[in-house]
Amino acid sequence: MRYELYYWSGIQGRGEFVRLALEDAGASYDDVARTKGDQAMMPFLHGKHAGALPFAPPFLRAGKQVIAQAANILAFLGPRHGLVPASEPARRYAMQLQQTVTDIVAEVHDTHHPISGDLYYEQQRTEARKRANAFCEERIPKFLGYFEQVLDRGDGRHAIGRRHSYVDLSLFQLMSGLDYAFPNAMTSIRRRTTRLRALQQRVAERPNIAAYLATERRIPFNEDGIFRRYPELDER
Amino acid sequence: MRYELYYWSGIQGRGEFVRLALEDAGASYDDVARTKGDQAMMPFLHGKHAGALPFAPPFLRAGKQVIAQAANILAFLGPRHGLVPASEPARRYAMQLQQTVTDIVAEVHDTHHPISGDLYYEQQRTEARKRANAFCEERIPKFLGYFEQVLDRGDGRHAIGRRHSYVDLSLFQLMSGLDYAFPNAMTSIRRRTTRLRALQQRVAERPNIAAYLATERRIPFNEDGIFRRYPELDER
Repeated sequence: MRYELYYWSGIQGRGEFVRLALEDAGASYDDVARTKGDQAMMPFLHGKHAGALPFAPPFLRAGKQVIAQAANILAFLGPRHGLVPASEPARRYAMQLQQTVTDIVAEVHDTHHPISGDLYYEQQRTEARKRANAFCEERIPKFLGYFEQVLDRGDGRHAIGRRHSYVDLSLFQLMSGLDYAFPNAMTSIRRRTTRLRALQQRVAERPNIAAYLATERRIPFNEDGIFRRYPELDER
Repeated sequence: MRYELYYWSGIQGRGEFVRLALEDAGASYDDVARTKGDQAMMPFLHGKHAGALPFAPPFLRAGKQVIAQAANILAFLGPRHGLVPASEPARRYAMQLQQTVTDIVAEVHDTHHPISGDLYYEQQRTEARKRANAFCEERIPKFLGYFEQVLDRGDGRHAIGRRHSYVDLSLFQLMSGLDYAFPNAMTSIRRRTTRLRALQQRVAERPNIAAYLATERRIPFNEDGIFRRYPELDER
């Protein structure tokens, strides 16, 4: 089956968590908004189609199904492409971890938009400094410390048991995004994130991921996305 | 099977979404922290048990399994207690909607804690006013408008097809919490939320839910929880 992925064309954003799974799996997919423009998503967001109604991109079309929410799309793709172990408890754990990635990604967004997503960053810069400072001091160590512990409970190299999964791909993306947005904060906890660093390296070297990262399809991180580099938000 | 639910003892919080499903199903469960104290959760949060590691409460123990993240717990309970339709696409849609409930609940939390969860509300009151104002103006209408459209695409009364599901229970809780925290904002969009209002009423009248709401187990909303009534955050 050829999938259709729908996500804003100019950023990695939440779509990238899905894109990495599709690329790692070697799945066949159209990145619709990148070829037809963002307006191609609107009929779905306006409910002019059958099936599930998305609240926002990303969403995936798979045959007649429309599936939204990145963690939910990954739970759908995982079993179809060997990106999650077969057992129900393992799949549930993967979903739990993926939802925790969703949580920190929302918090990353709010470091630059602590008041409203409808205002520009420049209109909430003062509050963004405060929120980003708290995020770097409290939340990055808490979330990454948690994921280190998750790896430690497995074989040390994989989030779920001894098997590569979509959660590993998402942890790679999380680490890469945090490195881009908060290089100082990430450097300061480098010694406490050794397992995540090894995982990030391992994922980057997977043949399909390495090939993907070298293409133009991997849009660079930028200041329209979720992970943004504003130096004033990463002062130590 | 008798479940063990673990959640902070003094608030409804995110645990209430799970509790409503257990109560509606007439499931047998221990609300562990309410009988043994919050410290009963700590061995799990510190990883001193087998299985999945929770990032935070709520988590559920079901036999040997530990399951965290409210949406994930509901996806586990739903099929076991007839709280979600049997088809895979319907279950996926339920999960998608539940994750969207998770998203708005996180935004509700941040109306009173826009800078940091480690600071008191009083230390971030100025920013909270701004964030809450944007939340009432932009986000409540956007999320509730979306859920109205979801109901409209079904039979008008249920989130998923023509069947009662855990999503309906969560939408009841969302509406009840928003009514508590933002009565003015909720009154102002009353005419645009008629389907959600009917659903809220229908759920409140389900026998097990009506009985539960009349017990002491239903802790009143309070200013330690996620839905808080601070009048200055609900000025019109």
